[in-house]
Amino acid sequence: MTKPTMKQTLDIYRHQMDAFFASCLHEESIPPSLAHAMRYSLLAGGKRIRPVLCLVWGEFFGRTLDELVPFAASLEFIHTYSLVHDDLPAMDDDDLRRGQPASHVQHGEALAILAGDALLTEAFTLMLSASLPPDVVCQAALDVSEAAGPRGMVGGQVWDMEFSGGKDVSLDELQTMHALKTGAMIRSSCRAGAVLGQAAAQDLEKVTRYGECIGLAFQVADDILDLVGEAEKLGKPVGSDLAQGKATYPALIGLEKSRSLGQAMVREALAALNSFHGPQIDFLRDLAVYIMDRVE
Amino acid sequence: MTKPTMKQTLDIYRHQMDAFFASCLHEESIPPSLAHAMRYSLLAGGKRIRPVLCLVWGEFFGRTLDELVPFAASLEFIHTYSLVHDDLPAMDDDDLRRGQPASHVQHGEALAILAGDALLTEAFTLMLSASLPPDVVCQAALDVSEAAGPRGMVGGQVWDMEFSGGKDVSLDELQTMHALKTGAMIRSSCRAGAVLGQAAAQDLEKVTRYGECIGLAFQVADDILDLVGEAEKLGKPVGSDLAQGKATYPALIGLEKSRSLGQAMVREALAALNSFHGPQIDFLRDLAVYIMDRVE
Repeated sequence: MTKPTMKQTLDIYRHQMDAFFASCLHEESIPPSLAHAMRYSLLAGGKRIRPVLCLVWGEFFGRTLDELVPFAASLEFIHTYSLVHDDLPAMDDDDLRRGQPASHVQHGEALAILAGDALLTEAFTLMLSASLPPDVVCQAALDVSEAAGPRGMVGGQVWDMEFSGGKDVSLDELQTMHALKTGAMIRSSCRAGAVLGQAAAQDLEKVTRYGECIGLAFQVADDILDLVGEAEKLGKPVGSDLAQGKATYPALIGLEKSRSLGQAMVREALAALNSFHGPQIDFLRDLAVYIMDRVE
Repeated sequence: MTKPTMKQTLDIYRHQMDAFFASCLHEESIPPSLAHAMRYSLLAGGKRIRPVLCLVWGEFFGRTLDELVPFAASLEFIHTYSLVHDDLPAMDDDDLRRGQPASHVQHGEALAILAGDALLTEAFTLMLSASLPPDVVCQAALDVSEAAGPRGMVGGQVWDMEFSGGKDVSLDELQTMHALKTGAMIRSSCRAGAVLGQAAAQDLEKVTRYGECIGLAFQVADDILDLVGEAEKLGKPVGSDLAQGKATYPALIGLEKSRSLGQAMVREALAALNSFHGPQIDFLRDLAVYIMDRVE
């Protein structure tokens, strides 16, 4: 039997998550229109990269998928709520998301706001229902709440808003903004798995570094794809960042330096994995390399 | 020394909470505009009834105020976020809140949405940072997340939206909507204090019943005040529910039956306290009676 490729392994993890998402939010105690709007966005597809990172790190530190899946799902709930709110007319005003009408186009603005609120709150219900020791559940959920809140993702979203519209932005400011807006949740997805697996402090530091580096690499790759990629790979029009006057890595330091920065981040992510061994680590190494391979 | 009145005791608890709120969200790691918008709504006043209920029940079951205040604060963060989002143009479109411009009027719609998101997320950071045993912190935070989410407050908000605009609504539907929209968080505020104090299961049932009854009584009283009260007591124009075609208790069953229903709920709340004794219980009894006294 040949060893499965990174993409095959990724698909196995994704299907595990998608099966869980399909089972969510069917209770009669949720107003049907709300449950429908929540599921509409949750089941619209997506790479599921945040829950997968939590699953893989959690498995590496000895937890089973059954123990990890509901907590991992919460990370996608948070990511999904952030997309629903980002697309609103008062925010990015995007009508399309993953090739479908955005939530507010499909369900109206009021229900889109409430579906986002409900997805964020439900994320904590999922985390806090985990069948794992309460001390590690508390610690992991606290990590996620800090990554998602005003010192993390929401803070990054505010910086992004203030940097839009052609304002002069430094590379430092751009990196800080991305480290918060997308980086914090990717880092926390890795950390959550490790914390749930009761990783030792020095191991948690390496997990954190891996998460930081691939988070930044993902953002650099997305910026490059927005500029040069094909629309169908991206699920949104090519060049939309440029049209909106958004600060991006290629706009700020050029395409070649952006590629170098992304590759440096991938190398650093691989270095953080050096002392770890096993099939999960092989997967995490291949995943890191794949991020920048997409944009070569 | 005479025993302090209910209102004096309420003021003492409130000041404790207000001092904590004043100390929140000053970190440089939060974008200043976001911190400002969060604090604007958090410090706009309000009865602080949810955190106070958590403090009083927590104290009754043996916790100190120092142990309880950060967790109790999270309940006001959640209440505040819900008001910020409720006021948005796509929702109730209210320009005034507590005599001040609503958040979206003051800060723009995008920042108001994000400030609401950040307040909700920060609520969980506060809960999960509590210096109390992790098992009770998890249990209390799970209770709050369920009360705030799609099976609780957000679900009630969706029902409220669907019941607005003059649609025929039955008394049962109205009660279910309020039990979710405002009742769930008031009940959970009481329960959270008791859970943090490791109350026995049969005691927790009585706490729950007390919370349910005063939650409903508060709503009936608010509906009556909206119809007959003075604008300054209410902080919003009298008759605004009627103007919006909102289903209210007086609109549905008349003023007299609404008063009877509220009074019956107060009596049931008092009955739930029967087996408990002490200064906290005296306060909770007086508080329940006061709810309907306001509208006699």
